[in-house]
Amino acid sequence: MKSDRDRIAALIRTIPDFPKKGIMFRDVTTLILDHSGLTRTGEIMCEQARVLRPDKIIGIESRGFIFGTLVAKGLESGLVLARKKGKLPGKTIQHTYDLEYGQDTLEIHVDAIKPGERCLIVDDLLATGGTAEAAACLVEKMGGKVIGCSFVVNLPELGGHKKLAHYPLNWIVDFEGH
Amino acid sequence: MKSDRDRIAALIRTIPDFPKKGIMFRDVTTLILDHSGLTRTGEIMCEQARVLRPDKIIGIESRGFIFGTLVAKGLESGLVLARKKGKLPGKTIQHTYDLEYGQDTLEIHVDAIKPGERCLIVDDLLATGGTAEAAACLVEKMGGKVIGCSFVVNLPELGGHKKLAHYPLNWIVDFEGH
Repeated sequence: MKSDRDRIAALIRTIPDFPKKGIMFRDVTTLILDHSGLTRTGEIMCEQARVLRPDKIIGIESRGFIFGTLVAKGLESGLVLARKKGKLPGKTIQHTYDLEYGQDTLEIHVDAIKPGERCLIVDDLLATGGTAEAAACLVEKMGGKVIGCSFVVNLPELGGHKKLAHYPLNWIVDFEGH
Repeated sequence: MKSDRDRIAALIRTIPDFPKKGIMFRDVTTLILDHSGLTRTGEIMCEQARVLRPDKIIGIESRGFIFGTLVAKGLESGLVLARKKGKLPGKTIQHTYDLEYGQDTLEIHVDAIKPGERCLIVDDLLATGGTAEAAACLVEKMGGKVIGCSFVVNLPELGGHKKLAHYPLNWIVDFEGH
């Protein structure tokens, strides 16, 4: 019998050479297209993170908004958006970082996290860990506590799970290659 | 006693002059930061759309991903992402349209909607209706049936509810001005 993890892995499509040659893109759009895939992924992420008792879920733009919403709903937390530069309308703090495909800036509204709040970072995929680390940095600049990071997919060869090893980390499936 | 709609309206922040001078930006990040605001918004959107029996929820990038996720989970539908150009990794169909702040192109994966599927379009805000209309156009190009559009906020002065009046439309709160 297939495990939930096998079912979720089977629903994730691999697209070679996106966004550039040599990258095997792990596409979760086929996972969320399936209602039971969407729901079960959210349930597992909530089961994994419940013990961390987050006050706030930090959803990383933009697929992190989907899984962040599922976890925020399931764990009765508020949802904070970590967005690319210029997208948030209010006053923000920023952090610029290197990522797998270039460089980027992430922002969070300055009033989105209160000092001492327990924050869980959520995204679809853990690759080099640069984006999640930038989100963690923003949380900590605002006095929040990063209590963990949750992903659907981990790409172990890219080493993000090592870079973020000082935080509790959860994910559902590993894919080899990148 | 405050109604749910009043509570949701009160949680939406207005930011003047974003993204450009003269625009009153209705910011839902303060709504989703509040767990009960997030949850109750999702519940009302589901109550409004349940009768439409959607097979697929079309979430429009990127705040539509949040509310689309809540509706897809609540109504046991699959979630389809309608994204800006170049973001989706698989084969897509495109539609270019005019929107309140310029022009844009929306894409959907060609295999995300099957002919005859009942599709509900979800976004945070109905302004001129250009983006939702583009999403509807993509659904129809793929042989899907647009059974309605759901929003959190409607800006009646911008006329989107008139442009889309041939579809069943739902929203939770109206804001005057734009």
